[in-house]
Amino acid sequence: MPALSLVAMTQHITPALAATFPPPVMEARRWIEGAVFPPDRPLLNLSQAAPADPPPEPLRQAMAEIVLTDTSAHLYGPVLGIPELRARVASDWSTAYGGQVRADQVAITSGCNQAFAASLATLASAGDNVILPIPYYFNHKMWLDMAGVEARYLDTDDGLLPDAEDAAALIDDRTRAIVLVSPNNPGGVEYPASTLAAFRDLARRRGLALIVDETYRDFDARDGAPHDLFADPDWDETLIQLYSFSKAYRLTGHRVGAICAAPARLAQVEKWLDTVTICPAGLGQRAALWGMENLGDWLAGERQEILARRAAMDAGFAQLGDWRVLGCGAYFAYVAHPFDRPSDDVAKALIQSASLLVLPGTMFGPTRAQGGSGRAEATLRIAYANADRSGIEVLFDRLAQVTASGL
Amino acid sequence: MPALSLVAMTQHITPALAATFPPPVMEARRWIEGAVFPPDRPLLNLSQAAPADPPPEPLRQAMAEIVLTDTSAHLYGPVLGIPELRARVASDWSTAYGGQVRADQVAITSGCNQAFAASLATLASAGDNVILPIPYYFNHKMWLDMAGVEARYLDTDDGLLPDAEDAAALIDDRTRAIVLVSPNNPGGVEYPASTLAAFRDLARRRGLALIVDETYRDFDARDGAPHDLFADPDWDETLIQLYSFSKAYRLTGHRVGAICAAPARLAQVEKWLDTVTICPAGLGQRAALWGMENLGDWLAGERQEILARRAAMDAGFAQLGDWRVLGCGAYFAYVAHPFDRPSDDVAKALIQSASLLVLPGTMFGPTRAQGGSGRAEATLRIAYANADRSGIEVLFDRLAQVTASGL
Repeated sequence: MPALSLVAMTQHITPALAATFPPPVMEARRWIEGAVFPPDRPLLNLSQAAPADPPPEPLRQAMAEIVLTDTSAHLYGPVLGIPELRARVASDWSTAYGGQVRADQVAITSGCNQAFAASLATLASAGDNVILPIPYYFNHKMWLDMAGVEARYLDTDDGLLPDAEDAAALIDDRTRAIVLVSPNNPGGVEYPASTLAAFRDLARRRGLALIVDETYRDFDARDGAPHDLFADPDWDETLIQLYSFSKAYRLTGHRVGAICAAPARLAQVEKWLDTVTICPAGLGQRAALWGMENLGDWLAGERQEILARRAAMDAGFAQLGDWRVLGCGAYFAYVAHPFDRPSDDVAKALIQSASLLVLPGTMFGPTRAQGGSGRAEATLRIAYANADRSGIEVLFDRLAQVTASGL
Repeated sequence: MPALSLVAMTQHITPALAATFPPPVMEARRWIEGAVFPPDRPLLNLSQAAPADPPPEPLRQAMAEIVLTDTSAHLYGPVLGIPELRARVASDWSTAYGGQVRADQVAITSGCNQAFAASLATLASAGDNVILPIPYYFNHKMWLDMAGVEARYLDTDDGLLPDAEDAAALIDDRTRAIVLVSPNNPGGVEYPASTLAAFRDLARRRGLALIVDETYRDFDARDGAPHDLFADPDWDETLIQLYSFSKAYRLTGHRVGAICAAPARLAQVEKWLDTVTICPAGLGQRAALWGMENLGDWLAGERQEILARRAAMDAGFAQLGDWRVLGCGAYFAYVAHPFDRPSDDVAKALIQSASLLVLPGTMFGPTRAQGGSGRAEATLRIAYANADRSGIEVLFDRLAQVTASGL
């Protein structure tokens, strides 16, 4: 490819970006580019955490109406989001978490990845470090790499839970934040309220931010509040909570997320967001608001469906043998495979042998060569939310076959 | 505000972000918050470069149809944009500029600010520098400040044109790029093809990137190609061209922009965009494509209207006296005011005395205290595209009044 080498010769690429790994989901898409699958065994793509269906019909109708009649949805809006949506998040969160969240503590972003990047931009510069449990969500690691911020890996136990005492040992004077994802991507595990409280206490004691990404909160199996962090009247001195509207209302293509944090931090976030996107998409924000106002019952049903799929995943692996489930929840099963090959090899082989696309553990944590424990090579992430229950049956038929016959 | 001081005490803010100025447009919005205007003299807001009207009716109808029928518009798409839009930009640009632009040299972004930030992220790290003519587009300066990249100011002449020879003197071994905006924001001036070619030659000779932001290309007064940079078969070794669909099709709220650059650089851009927004909004991309396919004649009419407003601005200032036009074009007149006060004072006083909101030159370049020449204090940017011709009459009535009576 001559274009590549010419540019490499004549133009500079920033070293931190050049050293950042490419987007795993796009990488996985390339694995299946041009692949031909047997007609009786079409591709089962369980690589990306995304609904496969559009928003429910009433929401699509409401969006079409907005497009036709609401001029402001087409124009620039406030950098930190439309006031109605900020207020609605504040009020719903206050109720759901039994605490007080004000509208000026909420910012709307162009998706939850942007919520993370914007928050980190306020917290950590090149040379600083941030504590990241492994397995990590790959875009978190990518942002830190691009920014020249060191990711300090925090090991998790066999149930993928991190421990605040282990984290304490990693902190030094350049540590700026601890990043937790619950329910976890990629691990599926739901962190107990006591775990989150212990991390909050540690972060507060050491003057760090505690970032809690709750993208999958709407699919938590537990009833009631998953933690009581917002019940602390001074929560915003320590906590930065991130959220995505994409999963709840199937709005992935519309890019709407949120940050709950101190107004003083959001004033810094505002500078960054203004420079990076000016404002979140107007239609997506109004769709998210309409969803919060009208789709509570529908969302409760969606949650039940996801929980049923989760039960089917647990049952399937219990029957399968040889495979071991480390975590299962949110949209994900994080499992140890039975093959004597590293997970990236296994993932590629599964495309050939089983017409199955899942992501290897090597995309979610350091390999042995990078100082990892070997878990990255041993594991796969299966984004089961994309499959209905018959899809999950197909999954286990195929896994049973390759487990029996080898890859 | 106790929240501010508490956070400042307990939580870290990155120094580069803390030192970055707040978003000027949001700052200006705050100047008018709570202001009450006389009924016979309502606010005339010429602060932001944005259409005030929604997309034309046929495009809104097409968007509603997409919302109701096109599932993929609601789901994640490719990080670098949908292939159809990349291909359409490539083909239209090839025709318009008389050169060859391929689809793999085009990336779609969440607006043109993001196109700039993503491009810069590939080019410049903390400690590097970038050459920026003054007056600059403020979000360009903000990104550089946040990234710890030094903006090397390039003076422009009385017609706001930069000179490549002056730029040559600013280059050192940490210089990574030269940034030009044509037609210019905030200056309104259209750079001659020869100016752009001279900068391209300089950039190529010194191994730099030449970034040309052509957000306002659709409103250039010149017929035919505004430059021949794309006619060079090796254009992508040096040139990074940025574009926005927001102005042409009134899609500001949908966030769609573009980068034309080398595929190798776009592979780096892809990492950054994946981490920051995952993908551009699906509806906005399809709306932009529909616009390119169907609104050519309509856009030609829009251009004529903007050019008529520009003529009205030139004529108005010629009559007004005392004021001096440095540049007028795109959406902007950049003018020297006649008052013996700095421009930020003048802008605030105009809200009171004339119910007029425009942005001061101090938002577009260094003040005297920051080493500037004094032009920042002497000038105002008037985003006239927001006003129809009767609005422009009102503008000049009010300017005549304050010019006569003083502020």
